[in-house]
Amino acid sequence: MEALLKTVKVDARDNVAILTRDLPKGTLVENDVLLWEDIPQSHKVALEDIPANGKIIRYHVLLGYAKTAIKKGQWINEDLLILPKAPSLNQLRPGNHVKRRDLPPLPRTTFEGYRNSKNEFAGTRNILAIHTTVQCVVGVLNVAVRKIRKEILPRYPHVDDVMVVNHAYGCGVAINAPDAKIPIRALHHLLEHPNFGGEVMVVALGCEKLRPEMMMGPELINSENLIVLQDFGGFQEMLAAICAMAEKKLTKLNERRRETLPLSQLLVGMQCGGSDAFSGVTANPSAGFASDLLVAAGATVMFSEVTEVRDGVELLADRITSAPVCDKLVSEMRWYDQYLDNGKVDRSANPTPGNKKGGLSTIVEKAMGSIAKSGTSEIVEVLSPGEIPTKHGLIYAATPASDFVCGTMQMCSGAAVQVFVTGRGTPYGLQALPVIKLCTRSDLKQHWDDIIDIDAGAILTGEKTLAEMGVDVFNYIVDVASGTKKPFTETYHIYNDVCVFNPAPIT
Amino acid sequence: MEALLKTVKVDARDNVAILTRDLPKGTLVENDVLLWEDIPQSHKVALEDIPANGKIIRYHVLLGYAKTAIKKGQWINEDLLILPKAPSLNQLRPGNHVKRRDLPPLPRTTFEGYRNSKNEFAGTRNILAIHTTVQCVVGVLNVAVRKIRKEILPRYPHVDDVMVVNHAYGCGVAINAPDAKIPIRALHHLLEHPNFGGEVMVVALGCEKLRPEMMMGPELINSENLIVLQDFGGFQEMLAAICAMAEKKLTKLNERRRETLPLSQLLVGMQCGGSDAFSGVTANPSAGFASDLLVAAGATVMFSEVTEVRDGVELLADRITSAPVCDKLVSEMRWYDQYLDNGKVDRSANPTPGNKKGGLSTIVEKAMGSIAKSGTSEIVEVLSPGEIPTKHGLIYAATPASDFVCGTMQMCSGAAVQVFVTGRGTPYGLQALPVIKLCTRSDLKQHWDDIIDIDAGAILTGEKTLAEMGVDVFNYIVDVASGTKKPFTETYHIYNDVCVFNPAPIT
Repeated sequence: MEALLKTVKVDARDNVAILTRDLPKGTLVENDVLLWEDIPQSHKVALEDIPANGKIIRYHVLLGYAKTAIKKGQWINEDLLILPKAPSLNQLRPGNHVKRRDLPPLPRTTFEGYRNSKNEFAGTRNILAIHTTVQCVVGVLNVAVRKIRKEILPRYPHVDDVMVVNHAYGCGVAINAPDAKIPIRALHHLLEHPNFGGEVMVVALGCEKLRPEMMMGPELINSENLIVLQDFGGFQEMLAAICAMAEKKLTKLNERRRETLPLSQLLVGMQCGGSDAFSGVTANPSAGFASDLLVAAGATVMFSEVTEVRDGVELLADRITSAPVCDKLVSEMRWYDQYLDNGKVDRSANPTPGNKKGGLSTIVEKAMGSIAKSGTSEIVEVLSPGEIPTKHGLIYAATPASDFVCGTMQMCSGAAVQVFVTGRGTPYGLQALPVIKLCTRSDLKQHWDDIIDIDAGAILTGEKTLAEMGVDVFNYIVDVASGTKKPFTETYHIYNDVCVFNPAPIT
Repeated sequence: MEALLKTVKVDARDNVAILTRDLPKGTLVENDVLLWEDIPQSHKVALEDIPANGKIIRYHVLLGYAKTAIKKGQWINEDLLILPKAPSLNQLRPGNHVKRRDLPPLPRTTFEGYRNSKNEFAGTRNILAIHTTVQCVVGVLNVAVRKIRKEILPRYPHVDDVMVVNHAYGCGVAINAPDAKIPIRALHHLLEHPNFGGEVMVVALGCEKLRPEMMMGPELINSENLIVLQDFGGFQEMLAAICAMAEKKLTKLNERRRETLPLSQLLVGMQCGGSDAFSGVTANPSAGFASDLLVAAGATVMFSEVTEVRDGVELLADRITSAPVCDKLVSEMRWYDQYLDNGKVDRSANPTPGNKKGGLSTIVEKAMGSIAKSGTSEIVEVLSPGEIPTKHGLIYAATPASDFVCGTMQMCSGAAVQVFVTGRGTPYGLQALPVIKLCTRSDLKQHWDDIIDIDAGAILTGEKTLAEMGVDVFNYIVDVASGTKKPFTETYHIYNDVCVFNPAPIT
């Protein structure tokens, strides 16, 4: 299906537009703009002459200043922009009133999930997770899990999977460093993930810095839930102990059944990665529309990625009405500014070569697309990385933007299903929760037909409106959460590692 | 076998000794010292009255100052010591002359290895490694490798294994941060690992920050060696491409055969983890003796772990005769001091709860044991993390002390076999190279009979001398390198993750 439009101008006041496909020099776009050169798909064309140091505006937002004079019809690639200063955090104030967009009638208000007695959020899958205090135990545990998967799991047909929560943390780390609280909190909260059904199984070594009592409540520290490898006489005994505990946990998990639950028990993560200039036009707004529908239906939706919202932080503050929530937003942004500064970089380290190839010139432009996936609802809570929500509604979880780190941290915060928006295309997936791939352009869907679940490019072709696409995404999320649909990453077992964020030193 | 001695005093000038087993209050040790209380195995007893702020000396080295007065016969646990200041780096000078200990005749000077045409070090195993530029590709690659292992590898009987070089690096990272050179260099050098036989296979995504040209020489960037997932039409095509390239590489690797090679082509890593107070008495000195034999036989031996040598840095400098090598030692120590300081910690973050349980009171005490595994040879080169040796002999590679990070970084520097000394016991192993477990105490060997390969506790019982044990360790290393012996981690496939050191920020 060919795009109806040659270019997309997001806001009437913009002085650039992006091309919906590769176009040759001499093509006429936007009525009176003649392309001065060949311009690739998703890249920007100047709609007017811009003087040196002039503002380049998209989304009615300053993407950057022109390094040299730019002619009407010229290709504006990332080399022509000077990044503006990051918005100051000193004057940030909460908004007075948040106006969520008008929504169509809610398609559904319930889903089929696994109710949890100790967690207000329900599971979308029924998984035995074997947690670890430290990387040291992983070699033994991987052997055990291969055995469990082959010989034991098949006897428990109501359990979807068994997984190792395998991480590079736990020892050889500065466990008392101020920032160590981040990975410790994340691993602690992961024990309570809604998809793990409250069955706790932890494998420790015995001499590590991350002691079991730092990860588990005292009521859990007993031989029902915790295996300390140094207490066992050799490899075969360790293997037997792990398999025996796993079988007990599987027996309990196998009794779980889905039931009809209100969407208020669903926690959805929204993430994007491998973005391009269409991200902010098609897929992220569709995800944002679905997010608004979910929130209206009572669900909780989490979005993240500090370096990708840093330049739009004022837009976020405008959608917060509580002063303490706004203060927490500021403190998370400040922490990250300082963290990058310690490493002698800043937010401009964010756009990737792929982003740039996809037409995203600066982190500002990327941010505008990224924020679109949060929709228009009020932001009711801001979480430090690895914290779990205490409120329902739209939540900002201040994690790194790295796909696999953000995904892991949203998982640690309890996301039971995730929407992953991509423009360039990544096969990223997680084992603990289903990840739905939503792409920005129809040609990516055609190219990666067995990886991309939903094609938001239909908005560009005029085939679907934003609202229609938003409803499609909403329904897909609820179907996947209910187990009636499987995204491709789940079908093919395309799972990334657990990559916990550890900003503290390795020792 | 019962220990002959109740206590071990390392140096005649020490004012403490360690217990070879749990001993009750009232036991007489070292002729005239009556234990004032029950003291556990491997913990220290005061051999004389020590006043408050008095020096506590072991290895003829200051472990710390007494927090309160300590009576002769009292148990000195870690709560009674105040850590001394780290040795200054300002006055560090190379030694004049390094006297290696007298050695018995060399048992062997050759091994059976896989010669490499482009690497002066030979392989000890024949492995197909599939490298990755970024974590994003790992989900797809893991599926492919399961297929390769099941359907393709069995047709290539001369290849030992196929592995994914799976890491959490490559994107969502500050790729231009000054410290980013560490992980990039490490992954780059890993392509040349002696056990991978010069066959390069890299899987990239296409939009990541770690671009293939940052990891591979330009002569390698072609469709023979590099698969970019975004260039393939979906998951099934990716899978087919990975399997097809793997098969070509396996065909070549399958032609490799072991041949008799001089030990100068062997690169051995020495590491310790889960140390206890015996580490510096039994296992680490045995490893050190073997290290001296290896170096005398022309081999290259690498030891590491910055925070574990920081307090003994003067001992290291004494064993360096080249001023530039000494300068590099200083600069690596300074870098690490600063790195820890940025994270608001210092070297005291090192000892683990397990170390302390094992009688190691301070990082100084741990350091003395750790350094013992380097023997007495001259240190001919100092490497930054992930660098590869340019000299033969004893080399100090300045990596973190974390077992799995140090192991990974020694692997990236080309270690083809590793000796891992342990006191508390860890099942740590690596897939790319055999890891030999050497324990400090016979009761650990009895407890973990199918994990520990060599028991250095025989030194304590008087069953073997240090020299005899050193020769045993040397012979075991050469046998494992030659493929005639397999350590337990290899027998049972106990493999830890690749945990590359990335001190730069995540974005």
